[in-house]
Amino acid sequence: MTGSRDGRSSPLGLHRVIKPAGVLPQAAWQLDNGPDIWPDEVRVRVERLNLDAASFRQLRDATGGSPAAMRAAVLEIVADRGKMQNPVTGSGGMLTGVVDEAGPDSPLGLAAGDRIATLVSLSLTPLAITDGLARWDGRSEQVPCAGHAILFGRSIAAVLPGDLPAGLALSVMDVCGAPALTERVVSNASAPLVAVIGAGGKSGSLSAAAARRAGARGVIGVVPAGPEAAAVRAAGLADQVVIADARDPVGLAAAVQSAGGPADVTVVCVDVPGCEGGAVLATAQGGTVIFFSMATSFSAAALGAEGMAADVTMLIGNGYVPGHADLALDLIRAEPGVRRLFEARLGHEKG
Amino acid sequence: MTGSRDGRSSPLGLHRVIKPAGVLPQAAWQLDNGPDIWPDEVRVRVERLNLDAASFRQLRDATGGSPAAMRAAVLEIVADRGKMQNPVTGSGGMLTGVVDEAGPDSPLGLAAGDRIATLVSLSLTPLAITDGLARWDGRSEQVPCAGHAILFGRSIAAVLPGDLPAGLALSVMDVCGAPALTERVVSNASAPLVAVIGAGGKSGSLSAAAARRAGARGVIGVVPAGPEAAAVRAAGLADQVVIADARDPVGLAAAVQSAGGPADVTVVCVDVPGCEGGAVLATAQGGTVIFFSMATSFSAAALGAEGMAADVTMLIGNGYVPGHADLALDLIRAEPGVRRLFEARLGHEKG
Repeated sequence: MTGSRDGRSSPLGLHRVIKPAGVLPQAAWQLDNGPDIWPDEVRVRVERLNLDAASFRQLRDATGGSPAAMRAAVLEIVADRGKMQNPVTGSGGMLTGVVDEAGPDSPLGLAAGDRIATLVSLSLTPLAITDGLARWDGRSEQVPCAGHAILFGRSIAAVLPGDLPAGLALSVMDVCGAPALTERVVSNASAPLVAVIGAGGKSGSLSAAAARRAGARGVIGVVPAGPEAAAVRAAGLADQVVIADARDPVGLAAAVQSAGGPADVTVVCVDVPGCEGGAVLATAQGGTVIFFSMATSFSAAALGAEGMAADVTMLIGNGYVPGHADLALDLIRAEPGVRRLFEARLGHEKG
Repeated sequence: MTGSRDGRSSPLGLHRVIKPAGVLPQAAWQLDNGPDIWPDEVRVRVERLNLDAASFRQLRDATGGSPAAMRAAVLEIVADRGKMQNPVTGSGGMLTGVVDEAGPDSPLGLAAGDRIATLVSLSLTPLAITDGLARWDGRSEQVPCAGHAILFGRSIAAVLPGDLPAGLALSVMDVCGAPALTERVVSNASAPLVAVIGAGGKSGSLSAAAARRAGARGVIGVVPAGPEAAAVRAAGLADQVVIADARDPVGLAAAVQSAGGPADVTVVCVDVPGCEGGAVLATAQGGTVIFFSMATSFSAAALGAEGMAADVTMLIGNGYVPGHADLALDLIRAEPGVRRLFEARLGHEKG
């Protein structure tokens, strides 16, 4: 059992920033991950981390991917920073756990014993790991983990739904900003043609389903290879499925063109660098590109569009849209094709 | 006099990419900067480079800023890459010069002898320098330069207006995407309150003027220090001018709040890293942030907004909007306050 702290706390978590002084927790190098909570905070007993795809890939590439090296890399980051924020990608992920203690002034509506998922990034969530990640094999983005995490007054967390396995719900909620923003953009356009780059992935499959429900006149799914194309076709997510390397702008644009493009709305859901030019080139003049990949380069997008005289609106995929978790969970309940894709990715895990 | 080349060329300039193969010129490490043109290309005799602010600052910080070191840094980049793209910031700038030869199939409407500015980034423009930059003192973003550059079929270039000094026109056209996109966003909102972070700079002052003309109900200019505040006040660009460090999110949001905020539209025009959180925090729920700074971090913006549960639309500032150069030049002609700010920045240069 731990105590609580007095004094002023910030709903944004500024009181937990150790260095550099004055920045927001997301921008901080190091956070105070101490277990004692301020009156508006919540302490969570962590059960599982869900690393974001760009971070997981970077760690695997940098370490060679052995279980011991992967564990050491994550433990070192958390020990140094008091949070799981990949220093290279800047990204984090999310976690699930059980509420251990909710401060009396917490506005989040959580109580001890609630099983929850955080919907704010690990990149700004104070975290301490106590089990050396001994149960993680280093091969999955989902990391069994013991320790504690802290939620601020303005953090977002959702109680895990009772009707879905926890692993599935976590995996859905991790990317729930993508279908929610796609839904909004497609709804505000008039029956646009939508291309989803990376339609076989988590955010991609949900975004494709959201686009169709929001009134897209057609959905083009772009995937990198044949097996994934078959899976997306079987899931019934897209009107057309085409194969292209998203890093090859000319090939990508040609593939979208062959499926009836250019697209009015292009949704980028692949976690590899270098997809900015192709996404812009696959989009009609006056259209919109939504970048959800954390591997997106701001300058490559801005200068690439300018360099091609492309009059496209380019959105930074904000992970927060009101109601995003409910929207994504409803999609997974209503769309068996999407659910199958998620379950195949989760593989042997039971949640 | 140089010859011309046969064979297929790409309006996007793909035929000039040396490595890596298959990427667009902006993403390429190295371009073919040879002077012989394909039938749809234009060769320009370069007179002046205008480095973008983020690149210039990075070069100055990295080299210490001595004239010899600055010259050596730019020459090395161009010799290595066949283009002036700062490897750290990814950004470039633009150039002015005189058309030397226009290929018979060029769609740009240019003729030998036209004095032009390129409106696509130097980061994708084949460039060779022949004078060692001997006339550059390293202290200004505007770099007197002899050499040649190549425009592709889909490049954009504008003939310099006869009624404005070349240095002034170049400086305006360099940032003309910012006021054009600001104008579009403000027009599509309903009399929004607009905050311009960095209102004393080039893109900032033009964006402030564009916001007012497009129907903003108020313009808040944010600047880092007193002298700049006085200049922006004297220029009459903003209804309120406040002083804040854009890298201090809490301070920035408080300053915008004190001037009647949060803003409905926030325009980020400062060329330093770390301004994402403050811009989001200074913006109302449901509002829009337009990031024009090449120092913007995609992941910091995406995760920062999510971390603060901020439902804001975040736009990557596309440097191309149809009619952008004319819009910006009209602003500089019509707004003496903006013109004075530009002329003060240009200092002793006569254009």
